[in-house]
Amino acid sequence: MAQKAVFYHAGCPVCVDAETRLALALDPRQFDVEIVHLGEKRGRIAEAEAAGVKSVPALVIAGKPYHVNFGAALSDLKG
Amino acid sequence: MAQKAVFYHAGCPVCVDAETRLALALDPRQFDVEIVHLGEKRGRIAEAEAAGVKSVPALVIAGKPYHVNFGAALSDLKG
Repeated sequence: MAQKAVFYHAGCPVCVDAETRLALALDPRQFDVEIVHLGEKRGRIAEAEAAGVKSVPALVIAGKPYHVNFGAALSDLKG
Repeated sequence: MAQKAVFYHAGCPVCVDAETRLALALDPRQFDVEIVHLGEKRGRIAEAEAAGVKSVPALVIAGKPYHVNFGAALSDLKG
């Protein structure tokens, strides 16, 4: 069964590139990928933070954070 | 046709985890993934550097670097 993967981003150029190249490149037979724009869904920042996300873009797979390059710090999205 | 993706690492715990979770999670129908251990293949450090890799683990897809979390700086592997 496909496991859940969440890609958190904030619409930045680094984020969009990572989304195209990496998040959408995951094997659909292994993963069910959800894309979450934290700038638009601020209510989910806490959830990303709880999973260990420090910056975006980041993928959370099986509850573990994988930061991909650096777009923006999570703390800057809280403002 | 599958495009080439190269996953550079140095055998560190962060690298091994990223390899399992991310490099091997790419869609095999989209990507032909090569795993390169730069500690064992120092001759390929220059190639990684030329692609913009600053640290490992990192994936290079279509010539662009995607650093995943942080295991070790490329400069530390040159020693």
